[in-house]
Amino acid sequence: MTAEAAFIEAMRTLACSDAARGLNDDAAVLQADGPLVVTHDIMVEGVHWLPGQDAADVAWKLVATNLSDLAAKGCAPVGLVLGYMLGDTAWNARFVLGLRDVLQRFDAPLIGGDTVSQASAGPRSLGLTAIGRPARNPPPARADAAAGQRVWVTGILGAALAGFEALQAGNNDPDLTAPYRRPVPLISQGIALAPVVGGMMDVSDGLLLDAGRMAIASGTTLAIDSAAVPVHAALADRRMEGMTWGDDYQLLFTLDPQLHAPVAATCIGRVLPRGPVPLLIDGAAPDAAMQLGFLHEGTSAALNRDK
Amino acid sequence: MTAEAAFIEAMRTLACSDAARGLNDDAAVLQADGPLVVTHDIMVEGVHWLPGQDAADVAWKLVATNLSDLAAKGCAPVGLVLGYMLGDTAWNARFVLGLRDVLQRFDAPLIGGDTVSQASAGPRSLGLTAIGRPARNPPPARADAAAGQRVWVTGILGAALAGFEALQAGNNDPDLTAPYRRPVPLISQGIALAPVVGGMMDVSDGLLLDAGRMAIASGTTLAIDSAAVPVHAALADRRMEGMTWGDDYQLLFTLDPQLHAPVAATCIGRVLPRGPVPLLIDGAAPDAAMQLGFLHEGTSAALNRDK
Repeated sequence: MTAEAAFIEAMRTLACSDAARGLNDDAAVLQADGPLVVTHDIMVEGVHWLPGQDAADVAWKLVATNLSDLAAKGCAPVGLVLGYMLGDTAWNARFVLGLRDVLQRFDAPLIGGDTVSQASAGPRSLGLTAIGRPARNPPPARADAAAGQRVWVTGILGAALAGFEALQAGNNDPDLTAPYRRPVPLISQGIALAPVVGGMMDVSDGLLLDAGRMAIASGTTLAIDSAAVPVHAALADRRMEGMTWGDDYQLLFTLDPQLHAPVAATCIGRVLPRGPVPLLIDGAAPDAAMQLGFLHEGTSAALNRDK
Repeated sequence: MTAEAAFIEAMRTLACSDAARGLNDDAAVLQADGPLVVTHDIMVEGVHWLPGQDAADVAWKLVATNLSDLAAKGCAPVGLVLGYMLGDTAWNARFVLGLRDVLQRFDAPLIGGDTVSQASAGPRSLGLTAIGRPARNPPPARADAAAGQRVWVTGILGAALAGFEALQAGNNDPDLTAPYRRPVPLISQGIALAPVVGGMMDVSDGLLLDAGRMAIASGTTLAIDSAAVPVHAALADRRMEGMTWGDDYQLLFTLDPQLHAPVAATCIGRVLPRGPVPLLIDGAAPDAAMQLGFLHEGTSAALNRDK
């Protein structure tokens, strides 16, 4: 059996929802009875993953980052479509294992896709389209933050950076490295939050950069109290890096001031009417030279803005 | 403005449906009130297009081949999601023009996507997810051909091959080369056919190979009368090549014997109960050494089977 045939057979065992039609038909058929949210991400070897990285983790991250976009829209996943460029047999096999893990963990149905063989010696790229059913119609948008609301964030910022640095230092402690290798999309949290939030988005490129984006989209100013931001213990003396490095996939959202978050989260600031700048950190505009987060130029940019 | 920013600005002018949310939000939101069909194709430089080929034609073909999959399901397109690896500025600009042409021609809304920069010197790849609303629920499937029905095909087979050979010979006559450069997905025909057909699929890999696939999926034997198959005039003495080369994107379908096709099409055979082989050509099993169509091994294979 060729590598391609083996991969497709493995996909057949994973694509067991009705929508996939056993991968025996020309296309997938989703039953929908309301709005659907659609997002797409590409990952490129050498940019989004390193040639030596475990393909199982690459598969996990490809799916998890797309599911995080759905989580920010308050969606449960209803269909994933994979664009897969074949690697060598061992790589494909590890990819299948990671894909199985992440699909099972988040109850995300693979419904179809396309494979191509690796074109000559160039770096490989992988694409994923994720389709979700939102808990609220219209789904939450980053543009819906309103002056007077409070700013909240789930979880601990900087956990991905701490994991990345551990890996770089040769420390493979799975608990420490998992936030970087296998980020967890906050699907149930996004669904619980959707009915009550103002603005919502996932923090993929760094808390401060993404907070600035929410402010710009909503025509407000977000005032962040940096001391309130929960940062990973490994970054106790580098808190600003934890707020800017990105890859954490936490949810950033706003709530009316009398509300408390229905999920574990921390209030880290306030939404103000738009002032001279969209973002205030401890009451002041960030230094113009300050890097607020991971910028895509030269790497990747979503047409729908989030990565 | 960077090449990436320029491309995204161009996409913003093309993505004007409500679902795209002006590409200002994290994801697209489709309003759905019934089943949706989802298909995905990847095209790779050097495999599916040549480095010197006009990027406008590449854009057209990427969209048209996906829309052909939707046509085979009797679908109108409701959303396209593009995974785009940036080329140089001139390539991107030509791609945008071809994309605009094909979206307008087939009334196909671009709703989102993702861009990445070209990773080092490797060949580029492009992905497209197309979502459609079927005229019939469930949509037609290749598995629904039934013994006793007649086999029909739209249009002229071999037009893509004739166009390809003209280009290879340096003949750029647009009428002759268009079927290869800019195939036309038969969307309105697919919608008209959906309520009456048994099995239906698009002919992407060659009539005979795809007819065999329909037979296998439906547990029947398809008996093709080769003299009845309409083949391009340029291939008058090479009719078999016209039936096997592929890339024609015609619709192959079956109808109960008392029905005539509601669109321009030719009856080319009959559906029989499954015999010893799935495909008969003029009453005989094809020679085992005969190449029935374009096989994907080493190039591309859809997880949902059609290319």
